[in-house]
Amino acid sequence: MINQMAGSRSMEFQNAPYIISAASIVGPKEEEGPLGGLFDLAAPEAEFGEDTWEKAESTMQKEALQTAIGKAQLEMCQVRYLFGGDLLAQLIATSFGNGDTEIPLFGLYGACSTCGESLMLAAMTVAGGYADYAAAVTSSHFGSAEKEFRFPLGYGNQRPLSASWTVTGSGAFVLSSRSGRVRVRGATPGRIVDMGVRDNMNMGACMAPAAGDTICRNLEDFHLQPKDYDQIITGDLGYIGQHILFDLMKERGLDISDRHMDCGIEIYDKEKQDTHAGGSGCGCSAVVLASYILPKLESGEWKRVLFVPTGALLSKVSFNEGQTVPGIAHAVILEHV
Amino acid sequence: MINQMAGSRSMEFQNAPYIISAASIVGPKEEEGPLGGLFDLAAPEAEFGEDTWEKAESTMQKEALQTAIGKAQLEMCQVRYLFGGDLLAQLIATSFGNGDTEIPLFGLYGACSTCGESLMLAAMTVAGGYADYAAAVTSSHFGSAEKEFRFPLGYGNQRPLSASWTVTGSGAFVLSSRSGRVRVRGATPGRIVDMGVRDNMNMGACMAPAAGDTICRNLEDFHLQPKDYDQIITGDLGYIGQHILFDLMKERGLDISDRHMDCGIEIYDKEKQDTHAGGSGCGCSAVVLASYILPKLESGEWKRVLFVPTGALLSKVSFNEGQTVPGIAHAVILEHV
Repeated sequence: MINQMAGSRSMEFQNAPYIISAASIVGPKEEEGPLGGLFDLAAPEAEFGEDTWEKAESTMQKEALQTAIGKAQLEMCQVRYLFGGDLLAQLIATSFGNGDTEIPLFGLYGACSTCGESLMLAAMTVAGGYADYAAAVTSSHFGSAEKEFRFPLGYGNQRPLSASWTVTGSGAFVLSSRSGRVRVRGATPGRIVDMGVRDNMNMGACMAPAAGDTICRNLEDFHLQPKDYDQIITGDLGYIGQHILFDLMKERGLDISDRHMDCGIEIYDKEKQDTHAGGSGCGCSAVVLASYILPKLESGEWKRVLFVPTGALLSKVSFNEGQTVPGIAHAVILEHV
Repeated sequence: MINQMAGSRSMEFQNAPYIISAASIVGPKEEEGPLGGLFDLAAPEAEFGEDTWEKAESTMQKEALQTAIGKAQLEMCQVRYLFGGDLLAQLIATSFGNGDTEIPLFGLYGACSTCGESLMLAAMTVAGGYADYAAAVTSSHFGSAEKEFRFPLGYGNQRPLSASWTVTGSGAFVLSSRSGRVRVRGATPGRIVDMGVRDNMNMGACMAPAAGDTICRNLEDFHLQPKDYDQIITGDLGYIGQHILFDLMKERGLDISDRHMDCGIEIYDKEKQDTHAGGSGCGCSAVVLASYILPKLESGEWKRVLFVPTGALLSKVSFNEGQTVPGIAHAVILEHV
């Protein structure tokens, strides 16, 4: 079995695993957006019945994973390994959300690209014969993320127009060699790309170069053109990052503007919801994949999609110590079967 | 190819990958300890020439990875994927230490168990045919960890005797299907174990139940007895955690006391170095593996070792919000060839 492609950094799965189920849990603001009604569960308030934002995020993860496993008609114990992550320091949303499951856990951190990282590793695990069923779960929460990266909500801090709004949501996926309607055909893991951007209120600008790097590398490695994908979907570049991505791709002679979608742009209504540059967070790409992208792949409306969650690699310490904000983007190829 | 063991949570690699090189970089306190002289590089001061603890930690990771890749007589670009992590919020030591390498990065967080998690995933990646060469790197730094989890060093805070001392060090490993003298025969990924311990100054007590859970599961899954391992080596339980582990194992009818070693106990001199419960951090198990354990496996002094890095899943937010401190432990079976 050869899963790696010579001279490339991509992998093509010889036994391409299937995404056999998915679930999305969101807060009220996401339910009020353009994708409202498509999510499995939308809580009436962002606290999810808990007394801290962090516990609320853990509760979302737990609900998302349970729902995805239930949809696959599996018991928790049948899922062999879990790949999970969130944006919080030391992944506490993941640790406290999944402790009860007793599923062996691989904790991951790739900022908002973690949904891509978790899908990739779950797919590698199933395709490599290490598990019949593996799950991937990621989450983000507006309240916990603002506290973690920017300002406590109580400050009522003003947000520049380049800032994105962290999605309150969690998406979970079960992967298996058992046949389904969408499979993970291959993947292109991302490398760190640092163009020297230092603005933590402009994540799109920080991440767009990494998205461009991974997309170009994917096209090269698989000898594809943009037209070979029905959609090329980034995680949370938002309006500004999308603009930069188009420019960077054009410099390389590639125009993806007629088939590019960004989960951060799709999830909120720009005019009505006051979310400025768009949505972000590793829950953003996860819930849009589960609720909107996968159904279109399952129905065959889209045959092949490049799904590219994007992450900005900073912490409040790195930012306050004057470091840049590098980006990373992990791509998975999703195909209708 | 079947890599999973039915009814178990362990995996046995059909094409067991080799650890073809390893490197360890430490600070001055570690060099003054019992393993001094065995490390590849010991800096004369813990700042490593940088102006922040975080940059010092990044520099250690960079040096460790470069040294390991150099020892394997490889160019950086020949290493296909990197699995890396550290203890800091949003993995900034890893992100800023490895940006220049251009190796696609899978960011990992398993607290002090991350060395086990990274070795396991790198081994799965090589054994699954996804890469000819994959690398694993982890680090911790006393200065950055105290700031991250407890008190800034400038406070001169007193430490209870149950507290451990975070190791300033980074270990890196290159795994390959190319023949070497030590191979990764199998692995037992850990699950979250929460016994309700809430003391962030007693990590050994938080992690010992997870170590016991993973070790017992490994023995069951592979139908082994403790005597089948020359050594069972935990990451950083320290003196108190070791005591608890022995008690927990005895409750299950297993005595591992004649072949147990803990990296956190080995790395410092209890009497002379004032490190209380022992060393800790995801650099601890990594540098002891690279400098002390692997040479004994390479020489054949030890034939088979169970290496079990242990992690305590907390952040300062989870702790201050009154959450417990669950543990996790990931085990890899290392064999002399």
